[in-house]
Amino acid sequence: MSVLRLAMVGGGPGAFIGPVHRMAAELDGRIRLVAGAFSRDPDKSAAAAQAWGVRGYADWSEMIAAEAGREDGAQAVAVVTPNHLHLAVSRVALQAGLHVISDKPATRTLAEARELAAAVAASGRLYGLTYTYTGYPMVREAREIVRRGDLGSVRKVVVEYAQGWLSRPREREGAKQAEWRTDPALAGAGCIGDIGVHAFNLAEFVSGRRVERLCADVGTVVPGRRLDDDCNVLLRFGGGARGVLIASQISAGARNGLKLQVYGESGGLTWSHERPSELTIDRLEGPSQTLHAASVYLSGPAQAASRIPTGHPEGFIEAFANLYRDFADAIAEGRADAHPVPDIEEGVRSMAFVETAVAASRDESGWVALDGRIA
Amino acid sequence: MSVLRLAMVGGGPGAFIGPVHRMAAELDGRIRLVAGAFSRDPDKSAAAAQAWGVRGYADWSEMIAAEAGREDGAQAVAVVTPNHLHLAVSRVALQAGLHVISDKPATRTLAEARELAAAVAASGRLYGLTYTYTGYPMVREAREIVRRGDLGSVRKVVVEYAQGWLSRPREREGAKQAEWRTDPALAGAGCIGDIGVHAFNLAEFVSGRRVERLCADVGTVVPGRRLDDDCNVLLRFGGGARGVLIASQISAGARNGLKLQVYGESGGLTWSHERPSELTIDRLEGPSQTLHAASVYLSGPAQAASRIPTGHPEGFIEAFANLYRDFADAIAEGRADAHPVPDIEEGVRSMAFVETAVAASRDESGWVALDGRIA
Amino acid sequence: MSVLRLAMVGGGPGAFIGPVHRMAAELDGRIRLVAGAFSRDPDKSAAAAQAWGVRGYADWSEMIAAEAGREDGAQAVAVVTPNHLHLAVSRVALQAGLHVISDKPATRTLAEARELAAAVAASGRLYGLTYTYTGYPMVREAREIVRRGDLGSVRKVVVEYAQGWLSRPREREGAKQAEWRTDPALAGAGCIGDIGVHAFNLAEFVSGRRVERLCADVGTVVPGRRLDDDCNVLLRFGGGARGVLIASQISAGARNGLKLQVYGESGGLTWSHERPSELTIDRLEGPSQTLHAASVYLSGPAQAASRIPTGHPEGFIEAFANLYRDFADAIAEGRADAHPVPDIEEGVRSMAFVETAVAASRDESGWVALDGRIA
Amino acid sequence: MSVLRLAMVGGGPGAFIGPVHRMAAELDGRIRLVAGAFSRDPDKSAAAAQAWGVRGYADWSEMIAAEAGREDGAQAVAVVTPNHLHLAVSRVALQAGLHVISDKPATRTLAEARELAAAVAASGRLYGLTYTYTGYPMVREAREIVRRGDLGSVRKVVVEYAQGWLSRPREREGAKQAEWRTDPALAGAGCIGDIGVHAFNLAEFVSGRRVERLCADVGTVVPGRRLDDDCNVLLRFGGGARGVLIASQISAGARNGLKLQVYGESGGLTWSHERPSELTIDRLEGPSQTLHAASVYLSGPAQAASRIPTGHPEGFIEAFANLYRDFADAIAEGRADAHPVPDIEEGVRSMAFVETAVAASRDESGWVALDGRIA
Repeated sequence: MSVLRLAMVGGGPGAFIGPVHRMAAELDGRIRLVAGAFSRDPDKSAAAAQAWGVRGYADWSEMIAAEAGREDGAQAVAVVTPNHLHLAVSRVALQAGLHVISDKPATRTLAEARELAAAVAASGRLYGLTYTYTGYPMVREAREIVRRGDLGSVRKVVVEYAQGWLSRPREREGAKQAEWRTDPALAGAGCIGDIGVHAFNLAEFVSGRRVERLCADVGTVVPGRRLDDDCNVLLRFGGGARGVLIASQISAGARNGLKLQVYGESGGLTWSHERPSELTIDRLEGPSQTLHAASVYLSGPAQAASRIPTGHPEGFIEAFANLYRDFADAIAEGRADAHPVPDIEEGVRSMAFVETAVAASRDESGWVALDGRIA
Repeated sequence: MSVLRLAMVGGGPGAFIGPVHRMAAELDGRIRLVAGAFSRDPDKSAAAAQAWGVRGYADWSEMIAAEAGREDGAQAVAVVTPNHLHLAVSRVALQAGLHVISDKPATRTLAEARELAAAVAASGRLYGLTYTYTGYPMVREAREIVRRGDLGSVRKVVVEYAQGWLSRPREREGAKQAEWRTDPALAGAGCIGDIGVHAFNLAEFVSGRRVERLCADVGTVVPGRRLDDDCNVLLRFGGGARGVLIASQISAGARNGLKLQVYGESGGLTWSHERPSELTIDRLEGPSQTLHAASVYLSGPAQAASRIPTGHPEGFIEAFANLYRDFADAIAEGRADAHPVPDIEEGVRSMAFVETAVAASRDESGWVALDGRIA
Repeated sequence: MSVLRLAMVGGGPGAFIGPVHRMAAELDGRIRLVAGAFSRDPDKSAAAAQAWGVRGYADWSEMIAAEAGREDGAQAVAVVTPNHLHLAVSRVALQAGLHVISDKPATRTLAEARELAAAVAASGRLYGLTYTYTGYPMVREAREIVRRGDLGSVRKVVVEYAQGWLSRPREREGAKQAEWRTDPALAGAGCIGDIGVHAFNLAEFVSGRRVERLCADVGTVVPGRRLDDDCNVLLRFGGGARGVLIASQISAGARNGLKLQVYGESGGLTWSHERPSELTIDRLEGPSQTLHAASVYLSGPAQAASRIPTGHPEGFIEAFANLYRDFADAIAEGRADAHPVPDIEEGVRSMAFVETAVAASRDESGWVALDGRIA
Repeated sequence: MSVLRLAMVGGGPGAFIGPVHRMAAELDGRIRLVAGAFSRDPDKSAAAAQAWGVRGYADWSEMIAAEAGREDGAQAVAVVTPNHLHLAVSRVALQAGLHVISDKPATRTLAEARELAAAVAASGRLYGLTYTYTGYPMVREAREIVRRGDLGSVRKVVVEYAQGWLSRPREREGAKQAEWRTDPALAGAGCIGDIGVHAFNLAEFVSGRRVERLCADVGTVVPGRRLDDDCNVLLRFGGGARGVLIASQISAGARNGLKLQVYGESGGLTWSHERPSELTIDRLEGPSQTLHAASVYLSGPAQAASRIPTGHPEGFIEAFANLYRDFADAIAEGRADAHPVPDIEEGVRSMAFVETAVAASRDESGWVALDGRIA
């Protein structure tokens, strides 16, 4: 199988997620980074490119044009910029015939997400969205368990994503990550767009149910902050299941605590990012079970997502790498449907969630419908 | 210190909570059960009385009259009947000059709770409400930590109480506990009245903040059930803190999973009934801490709630016993304020929570105010 | 069923285990404390007796004689003194026709234990030894699992009992509990006799295998201490299983960490006193299981050891109470074999373990045989 | 900083640890695999080489000669063969002027390890030994805590490494990994050489103390197996600390459970591979602490071993990668002492442990001295 050549936009010095994308992309030897427009600052971009031994560019549109024109040029672009550039970069790359794999959220707004969906459709190229948590083996196992009906029909979903790092006004203390993530022009939404979308996507991914209505309390706790930093949402899924989604960046002391519980008629499952290689099943009758990643008794999709034997923990980078590997496989096979990489439809749904919840909370509308159609 | 003589109403054969009350009351040698109207069935009541070596009565009002008239008669009555009798029994006992300690909820309805509050005030007797979880040492430590300001001002409270035992229609399968707890005439409310009130009370007890507004989704999941079995509530506390309360009896596989998280400006605490002797503090800066019951470094109220050295687990009965011991102490000292036994005010607030949430959910009212005034 | 009348020797003010015995004995309403020689100090004994509403005595032999002679006198004696009195008190009580339930270890020395075994045999009375941990429901479940062969033949047993409270020379800092437990004349052995015997008994109780050989490292870590405070022992069980026993009172920071692992051919079980209501089974094939106390799927002996529904934690006092309840049942039925209370044979075996290990370690004998015969 | 060019010996199709070495080596972009003699089978080696885009060789000695002679040739060799080739490959590579990084154990026998030590010394090249667990951030933090004296003087060390995968005779069921690891000619020792050395090294690495004496029970549980599969060892460290080492491959149900406890005068620490990003400190006084990887409050060495923010788990591959990164740094700087990669001295000590324990157990020698001198 040939190696997929990747270019990156964003991810230069000081970035958090850029290096993760690079490590994840290359981990399995299926993808090689060959080029990057890592920073708007030409010197910084060149320095990063040199450090990683790839072609550096000062401007991302120039890079896309150049790479698309080379025989040994990048075949796909990883978009790891702040949100406001996601649409533009992705569209240009798609139009140049390159595949796109993008950090979440898909775009800054719902309207942009729908524009991007149209661009994806027109391009005939693949678009992947790195909802990292769907790359964990035990998240994939959880989905299989629900899909097989092992828990009976889904009745309740509780998902909580607690971070504490924005408990202080770090955007005014010189923290770059905090600056753009709390800036309406760059990020679009705050906590709900940054991590709420992970929780939303995870809940839908595992439960196999789609949110149809919601009732939201999206607020700003830290004085002076320009975007939301705490959100709590009541959910109603197709089929009638109830749900609760909690996402917060002011849960002081929390690190990166994403936890999902799905309850069916005869049992419930719990997955927590604090112990990502475990999945717990509690049943109405019989002992609780803990499933361990890389075990022979797991489903095919879960087994395929582990590299090393059970008891040898794989983490965030490996989960990310699973998305990249699936993305490369999908490209190689020319079809996305066999691989669980979230696509632009997930992107549109997430942005619909964000905008619906923010508006409903602001207006105290109570229950409102979620329209997650692509167009 | 003399031993307090206790009579019990309810708690006969097949009851869950009656035996717990008896064990808890007598654990510390401060209280002795001397009489009981354990069942409406005279034979059953007599049998229970004989087994426990106490005076048995066929009728609770007769018992109260008789005991109040004996020099060695009961000084207090434990009310452990289904909810619909709480008001009547408590009122008669108070009027007879006896103290009352009652299982939760205080009454079947809010109106009844306010009637009872008036009866308590008129009687000059003590009224205690067994919100069991407030009896745990680490719950009391949690309250002290918040009260001392160790976490800064409270910003967010998440409380979840998950049970799964009503996932099936057990009220139609001959389960006595399920029958009365899902019967509007006997219970008043369903899940929210049975365990939602525990969660509500715990959240207020530890946070020291009072719920002022709420937005509720209270529903019935099991077809044919006559009362709610799942509730999810967004909360707003005095001082502005946000909150989420989840209580469910259809969380299949859950046993009795009560968990509280309180986040302040500089840290958060977590207490879970699955590990009741621990309290975890996560901080914005510095390592996480786990505090263990019966440790010398705990606050006075927490230390006073343990009987045996750290590392020797105490559980539900001991937590319950702490409420009884505090109740006995309050009677002995003639003052309730030094002891943390929940009183009728907590009872009224809880019933206000129940009725407000049920009505708001039924009417899809969105955010509504909680009026928890006693009268 | 009539109530068993109990007298206590020891357990006065400042004692740790005396109050536990009283609470445990009375918890289920099957036993009532009626008399006590709580302290050698007549005033202290009288004060304790008054506080608990029982007959107080200044001298234990006088008490035994008096109670044995009363129609309403004690039928059994609880021995909760320091070890050096265990033999004398137990023997006198047995000879007076009273049953005996004793705190561990059975006696101060192996020779004494064998003397006591003879006294028990001669008396025709019941003798129970409170190896508390055998009273936990999940320990009993563990034994049933092994007994049923669910794990295949036992291959390895690891038991660790870590305490840290003697990390400092507390016997020279005025701590009464430390004083007698580190005094050769009162305690006989140190750590190995105080908690090593619990670990030893637990390993044999659950594995159903008896230790036949051992290789021991029993030492004193804290300078100036007169007895051992740390012991590590390699074990060989009948049937060939290997084992490791670790017991320490200088494991600084450890509270009361008793943990048992038993491995068979096809799986292993883990029980830890830190989460006493859980039992974990890991299998060669298939998910791990966690069994929860008071669940309907447990074995009869495990179910019988819980009082309240699953998810409502019971702890140390309740485990202790299970031993007392079984002891009362055995007396009522006139036979001990249906009830799992450890008896004098366990007492002799434990003392054989203590003396064999201490001697072998002192002499650096390497592997030595354990002769646990009663006589 | 320039990229280090690496060649690999072993690690072809079916290997477990070879792919881990490759992923780990390349993770941080500091090292690039350029060549490999992946298999004795020329076709297999060529296939692996092609898949990874590197130069393939049929014979490792040929590869070393060729690479050493190229200007763009490998600068270091990763040795990931079965144990019996470690000495030969390492020596030839060193003599060719290449650095060596080897999987553990260093060699098949102690005598070989001492030969290798001489070869390392003579070569002037760097030799690194991948004791993976020393690469975990929280293991490095643990070492710093002990080194700083935060726990006082070390008194006790307990290390347990439990695997269950050899509970059945898998070497006779066609499992390649089991075949060579239970073959005396290829592996040298069994469980003690395969995972006992990890436990031994970890105990010394964190405690900063060296084992001076031991008393061992090393045995074979599965009938017909040719090497040991279970070992239990009592330890005595320099400075007097006691220890216990347990390593087993017949702990049925265990996955890869390595756990270390180090107790000092005033507290103890626990690290478990099941939750590798946490380190727990229990203290004689004050609450327990849990330290989390990638936190700002950690020591320098621990912080340097994380790539991504706290709460984002890194696992086995990343721990391995830390060793590779440190190895590359040491080469770049021309000095090993600033970097915590285990070296040949650790290799010799571990082999001394293996041979001393196996012999002492076989002969039932009781306590024996450990001579871990290099020559």
